[in-house]
Amino acid sequence: MFRDSRMTRPKPETPEMTEPLAKRFPAPSLDQMPDDIRTRILAVQEKSGFVPNVFLTLAYRPDEFRAFFAYHDALMEKDGGLSKAEREMIVVATSAANQCHYCVIAHGAILRIRAKNPLIADQIAVNYRKADITPRQRAMLDFAMKVSRNAEAISEADFGEISSYGFSDDDIWDIAAIAAFFALSNRIANVTAMRPNDEFYLMGRLPK
Amino acid sequence: MFRDSRMTRPKPETPEMTEPLAKRFPAPSLDQMPDDIRTRILAVQEKSGFVPNVFLTLAYRPDEFRAFFAYHDALMEKDGGLSKAEREMIVVATSAANQCHYCVIAHGAILRIRAKNPLIADQIAVNYRKADITPRQRAMLDFAMKVSRNAEAISEADFGEISSYGFSDDDIWDIAAIAAFFALSNRIANVTAMRPNDEFYLMGRLPK
Amino acid sequence: MFRDSRMTRPKPETPEMTEPLAKRFPAPSLDQMPDDIRTRILAVQEKSGFVPNVFLTLAYRPDEFRAFFAYHDALMEKDGGLSKAEREMIVVATSAANQCHYCVIAHGAILRIRAKNPLIADQIAVNYRKADITPRQRAMLDFAMKVSRNAEAISEADFGEISSYGFSDDDIWDIAAIAAFFALSNRIANVTAMRPNDEFYLMGRLPK
Amino acid sequence: MFRDSRMTRPKPETPEMTEPLAKRFPAPSLDQMPDDIRTRILAVQEKSGFVPNVFLTLAYRPDEFRAFFAYHDALMEKDGGLSKAEREMIVVATSAANQCHYCVIAHGAILRIRAKNPLIADQIAVNYRKADITPRQRAMLDFAMKVSRNAEAISEADFGEISSYGFSDDDIWDIAAIAAFFALSNRIANVTAMRPNDEFYLMGRLPK
Amino acid sequence: MFRDSRMTRPKPETPEMTEPLAKRFPAPSLDQMPDDIRTRILAVQEKSGFVPNVFLTLAYRPDEFRAFFAYHDALMEKDGGLSKAEREMIVVATSAANQCHYCVIAHGAILRIRAKNPLIADQIAVNYRKADITPRQRAMLDFAMKVSRNAEAISEADFGEISSYGFSDDDIWDIAAIAAFFALSNRIANVTAMRPNDEFYLMGRLPK
Amino acid sequence: MFRDSRMTRPKPETPEMTEPLAKRFPAPSLDQMPDDIRTRILAVQEKSGFVPNVFLTLAYRPDEFRAFFAYHDALMEKDGGLSKAEREMIVVATSAANQCHYCVIAHGAILRIRAKNPLIADQIAVNYRKADITPRQRAMLDFAMKVSRNAEAISEADFGEISSYGFSDDDIWDIAAIAAFFALSNRIANVTAMRPNDEFYLMGRLPK
Repeated sequence: MFRDSRMTRPKPETPEMTEPLAKRFPAPSLDQMPDDIRTRILAVQEKSGFVPNVFLTLAYRPDEFRAFFAYHDALMEKDGGLSKAEREMIVVATSAANQCHYCVIAHGAILRIRAKNPLIADQIAVNYRKADITPRQRAMLDFAMKVSRNAEAISEADFGEISSYGFSDDDIWDIAAIAAFFALSNRIANVTAMRPNDEFYLMGRLPK
Repeated sequence: MFRDSRMTRPKPETPEMTEPLAKRFPAPSLDQMPDDIRTRILAVQEKSGFVPNVFLTLAYRPDEFRAFFAYHDALMEKDGGLSKAEREMIVVATSAANQCHYCVIAHGAILRIRAKNPLIADQIAVNYRKADITPRQRAMLDFAMKVSRNAEAISEADFGEISSYGFSDDDIWDIAAIAAFFALSNRIANVTAMRPNDEFYLMGRLPK
Repeated sequence: MFRDSRMTRPKPETPEMTEPLAKRFPAPSLDQMPDDIRTRILAVQEKSGFVPNVFLTLAYRPDEFRAFFAYHDALMEKDGGLSKAEREMIVVATSAANQCHYCVIAHGAILRIRAKNPLIADQIAVNYRKADITPRQRAMLDFAMKVSRNAEAISEADFGEISSYGFSDDDIWDIAAIAAFFALSNRIANVTAMRPNDEFYLMGRLPK
Repeated sequence: MFRDSRMTRPKPETPEMTEPLAKRFPAPSLDQMPDDIRTRILAVQEKSGFVPNVFLTLAYRPDEFRAFFAYHDALMEKDGGLSKAEREMIVVATSAANQCHYCVIAHGAILRIRAKNPLIADQIAVNYRKADITPRQRAMLDFAMKVSRNAEAISEADFGEISSYGFSDDDIWDIAAIAAFFALSNRIANVTAMRPNDEFYLMGRLPK
Repeated sequence: MFRDSRMTRPKPETPEMTEPLAKRFPAPSLDQMPDDIRTRILAVQEKSGFVPNVFLTLAYRPDEFRAFFAYHDALMEKDGGLSKAEREMIVVATSAANQCHYCVIAHGAILRIRAKNPLIADQIAVNYRKADITPRQRAMLDFAMKVSRNAEAISEADFGEISSYGFSDDDIWDIAAIAAFFALSNRIANVTAMRPNDEFYLMGRLPK
Repeated sequence: MFRDSRMTRPKPETPEMTEPLAKRFPAPSLDQMPDDIRTRILAVQEKSGFVPNVFLTLAYRPDEFRAFFAYHDALMEKDGGLSKAEREMIVVATSAANQCHYCVIAHGAILRIRAKNPLIADQIAVNYRKADITPRQRAMLDFAMKVSRNAEAISEADFGEISSYGFSDDDIWDIAAIAAFFALSNRIANVTAMRPNDEFYLMGRLPK
């Protein structure tokens, strides 16, 4: 997925964490995890060269881990409609508004890679209104931000506005659902003080 | 679950909706749904006498349906720690702050039934600080509301405060995770204009 | 007024309170009240079957009691223009924004009765934008909410908007004055921790 | 009351207005007013040398006029407890937060006169935390501002804090009721674009 | 500059302060100041009859003093484009929103003098939307307030709006830069508890 | 200053801009600039290898350019008290709250270099409460953020809190003045849509 060859390291038996997790909610060790969760974590490590801390934090609660990643993958790994980079733009913009350390930095890295653009994540995190995006993407983020911050006031006018940029109803569901899912994710990460792995900060910033 | 005998009606073949769903995201008919989803919906109808609209709205997206209810059940149907009524208090308080029609009215009904208290849901929805709850429940809702509205500022002082009421770290995870999950749920419901079924308004208000 | 026959009970000599008032500002006993206030309270009890707590709380200050109810009646009992149900809609919407326990629950009951609609009060209290009201009523509540929350920014454009729905200047004064009067009322009720009588919660929810 | 000898002018038969009222809600002429209202207006003119516009604006609605001034006088003309200058401090501080033109300027004048202090009103209007007031008055304004802006969150801790400065429960009622009454008054004035008479701007600024 | 003949007093050797400065950041005595700063302060005293406290507070840091007044003069003493009264309107409106004691009262005085209007400063400080200004000045203040309070959301639509009133790009820079400069100034004044000199309160209120 | 050897390029006669400036406020060409400004810009280019866009944007107004950089240097280049990295932490935290593209990205780069820490700027920009800083630095940023966002409410309690971490009054002035200066700078940058040079994004992220 978001593997960066500069990051490759020997893969140890136990997941490698760049920083200790919050002690309040300790991650179980690999051999204490249910099989399906251990398998997923090892697969991510194999692919990325490290285990993003979100996997370890949520392993504290196996049922929630499974539901979380099932929901995540349904929204973020989906083909068609929004591009994968656009999906990550929504994550970065709304997570920045929610001041979520883990999500801005980890998904910022994924956005840089998926958009093949080393500047875009920082631009969107600071002020998406000034980012180098298309008017259509700007409309997408305006809608996502309203879902994230003022969903109670979403109106027919908002649907009309975003539809005018050519987004289908299915696209609009995706935009809203991603903003909603990261409303959950940002809160979990903020409460658990989930720490982004050091590897994320530099990913996607250098030419391959 | 939240069956109320006054509500029992003949169960028709197709799910009975008290109000049409938003046309923008039409629910599939029962026979178009994947088997597991149809089965769950029929089970809910059997138990409750009607199909809460959240099941129909989310059936539009089967993978998201499955993840949503898996997450929901992991948090809301869990035994031990917080009581089920307390879990619903968190839903009602945070959903009211997010002005979520469906969640306040549907979960208000469930709260009345689980707490066996016909007044508590309205009290918590309007202003939880004035509700007939214990100081420990008040502390639980203060923490949940901060997760819901200002998770970026949750601090060690907040953990210290809530721990002083005897909540374990596992309880605190539950409180935070329920507030976070309904941050998602409220946004989905607001964007889809999810309508609470008429049945919910009166459930739990009359002595059995 | 908002009498519900199911609620009728024997009328005792002293006013019957379902819950103790805040001890900080104790209501006088009936025989310590000035005659005009005692007379009004007994008349309300005769009509409604119980004494809404607002009458007892304000009896602590007879002059304020008289001015409060004179103002209230001038706005809420007025014939012509807005219907009585519409006047109560304004009360419920603005009082919910102000998180006023007493006003949302007591006036929610009155709204259900006056609108002959068991669902409308909860809908408006949670999120009036999603309630089953006409576009004209929606415009009325938009204006009322702006008076309640941002009166300093009311502009000619707001008057133009609401006038376009056919509201006369006299109607607009009523909308604004009701929102303004409950800005007062909500604050008094919140500071005195005024408690809605238990009777209100169920009033107007059952078919007659 | 707030007469300033420099302001004296011949008293004409019809009330003298320094600026036209908002045309949307025209004030009736003196001879069209009910007797009691005309009498009160003429008395104010006799005493002050001009008719503050609030009397003319509200004369549009005689019943509301009567209730408004009855309420106002019960709170602002009361003897004992808070001084009259302190009552006006509450008006100026909360009306400034509500950006109410009429109330800040008219009651600023009255405050200067009642406090015999030409600087105090501007200080409190801009930022009461920096005004030349006693710590007890500061606590009074902190409480009043919370009633005005966040009454839903008033707690026992707030009562404890203000009581520690020696305010009685009756004083606290007065503080809260004045803040609440001007929550109403500020909204009426903002919606009607009520204009302070020119005379108010200079009143109380010059040594007698 | 803003000299008012009624204010003239004998000019003493040491600057005359109507109120002690905050002790936390004591102003140096005149003879301890660098020559250029002492010279400027004596010139202001000569012209105005007193030394506005901002000069003394900032003399605590000579380099910042020089940069502050250089910036101030570049924006406020500039000829052409916006009138000097209009520049002061921006200061008063934005400083009131920032609750800056010193700036509202001192620049309110200057505004009254420059606009030759004894009412305008109080009107703009309380609620600029209700002030006696032209639609063009209203548009100027709307833009300035957005720069002051929400600069992150300034958009092409805002530029289009203000340009439609005939403001040039250079005028718009001035409006924005004045709002930005007083964002700095208001914060310095609030942190240092900078006190407006008593002289300012009455300046420009009486006919010459 | 913030030179990064990887960035070195041939220095052309005219300043090299990585992106066009906002056309609304065009930068003058080097030969149209006053001598002192051209000299400063060439010196920066010599040192850094490129001309940060803030120099070009502000060259549009030479007097403001001079005052801006004089103020900037007085606060940011000062020796003693706060370290230079700490000064940049204040810039990054407050500029992120103000959503200032230029300041977060350019000063984020400088912070990484001055702190010799490739992670710190992103951490502080997203949520300074979660950053790897000392409790003393956290207290410094809490104070700076209050100056930036709510200076009107800075109180003796705030001074007491920050002093308890060993900051002198001179340090506190610096903290406040930096937060105040970037309140200005952020607004100028947002209005002019000042664009951070591409070079900043990567500076300080790689080991030397």
